[in-house]
Amino acid sequence: MFNSIYIFGTGMMGGSLACSIKQAKVANKIYGFDREIKNLKYAKKNKIINDYDSKDFKLLSKADLIIICTPLSSYKKVFGIINKHKKDDAIVTDIGSAKSDIIKLSSKLLKNNNQCFIGSHPLAGKEKSTINNHDKDMYKNSVILLTPTSKTDKKLNTSVCEFWSSLKCQVLSIEPEVHDLVMSQTSHLPHLVSFALVNIILNSKSIKNIKAYTGGGFKDFARLAHSDSLMWKDICWSNKKNITKSIILLIKELQDIKKIINRNDSSLFKYLKDTKIKLNKK
Amino acid sequence: MFNSIYIFGTGMMGGSLACSIKQAKVANKIYGFDREIKNLKYAKKNKIINDYDSKDFKLLSKADLIIICTPLSSYKKVFGIINKHKKDDAIVTDIGSAKSDIIKLSSKLLKNNNQCFIGSHPLAGKEKSTINNHDKDMYKNSVILLTPTSKTDKKLNTSVCEFWSSLKCQVLSIEPEVHDLVMSQTSHLPHLVSFALVNIILNSKSIKNIKAYTGGGFKDFARLAHSDSLMWKDICWSNKKNITKSIILLIKELQDIKKIINRNDSSLFKYLKDTKIKLNKK
Repeated sequence: MFNSIYIFGTGMMGGSLACSIKQAKVANKIYGFDREIKNLKYAKKNKIINDYDSKDFKLLSKADLIIICTPLSSYKKVFGIINKHKKDDAIVTDIGSAKSDIIKLSSKLLKNNNQCFIGSHPLAGKEKSTINNHDKDMYKNSVILLTPTSKTDKKLNTSVCEFWSSLKCQVLSIEPEVHDLVMSQTSHLPHLVSFALVNIILNSKSIKNIKAYTGGGFKDFARLAHSDSLMWKDICWSNKKNITKSIILLIKELQDIKKIINRNDSSLFKYLKDTKIKLNKK
Repeated sequence: MFNSIYIFGTGMMGGSLACSIKQAKVANKIYGFDREIKNLKYAKKNKIINDYDSKDFKLLSKADLIIICTPLSSYKKVFGIINKHKKDDAIVTDIGSAKSDIIKLSSKLLKNNNQCFIGSHPLAGKEKSTINNHDKDMYKNSVILLTPTSKTDKKLNTSVCEFWSSLKCQVLSIEPEVHDLVMSQTSHLPHLVSFALVNIILNSKSIKNIKAYTGGGFKDFARLAHSDSLMWKDICWSNKKNITKSIILLIKELQDIKKIINRNDSSLFKYLKDTKIKLNKK
């Protein structure tokens, strides 16, 4: 239980998180800050937060737990503000989708970083990005990838782990570098492929009424391509090396499939069948 | 209203279709045939069909509407059986995912093909393929792509169109060649990409517990890779030319994205943003 939790960035993800915190009664007060005053007004009016901060950051200096819910490209600025205003014993986490870069940044910008900051990545979200699309059940039952380093304080680790557990999340610990590699394949690459597929389809002269064809596998991809452009630009840049490698792997795999399809033997069936069997075993 | 409708292939898709027909009361009797006697027994026991046929095809010779619900690779054999046993005025359609090849085949194998056969492709389905996974609401509100040729009889066209409409489906007509081109991009390519992505992830040594990571876009892809291997082998072969071209387009698009990510300018953000804007406009 925290006396006060501070949501730095009250967009869709931050707003939904505030709702979960309120529901689980994990804090006496929930405070928020956002670049956009209209988001803060919406959050206060709808009782998602108790109060919002202004640029003097008076509420930030009272907070016990600070959760960064802003795009990755703003972290440099946000860490600077937090470092200047936070209480000595306040703890800090985030919900960003790439971790290695921002953990390096935190070690440069946060005083006693190993005692106060640990990266979190909730595997939750949806494509609509403003606070009016918040969802009080977004975090419920979701997996949180917690990314401590070898230097992270054990007590801090326990506190943040307990915080997520109290929201009914399942917490898994993973090294930041492994996190970024795994996510480049399971999340970042699929999102980029969506953009690629959607672009191919949008550029096709044969397809006039795209909505007519959403039943055949397309909708699963198009959903991802509605995701926030700024967020995804930030993720790509923050995890550039792994994502580039993953794209190369996918190109190679597609070249193999193309070859196999054009062989008149059992290798295509075998490829499809074996993939399914391996997937079911996992 | 038909006196009897015959489902040739009572798997998940055929079984679900029989349920829709029964629910909509479009036929007095529903008959079925399948290679697997256990599927037929299941269908009869669960009152999905009224009776099942044996290899003398006595019930087939009574049917007014015959719907082929078998894998594309079996159509040659199935057209042969239908041609041999069907009533003169019986009409025939199917639910296959690729059309040009099988329409050519029907013109070779079915007597009076233009008066009796028209291809249909319901944009409906799920990954689990046996009849015990049937879903009585699978076809409800789904789009049916009807693929008449310039020679298809108008009355036949109207009958099959009315049949699908009576199941609360939305019927759209499309030329067979355009259908196969469009589907290669909106459905066949996304499915193959799923297999490719899943393979990359399964081959990754860093990913031990795949189920932990299903929240970040991966599940949308993995869902597709559970699809029936035989069906997808058949689709790939039947629509080989278009699918090959679509894979080449995707490789090119991924190469572009890789370049853009590695530039330190606004082109990545612009690419993501423009895709989303174009998608929202469609």
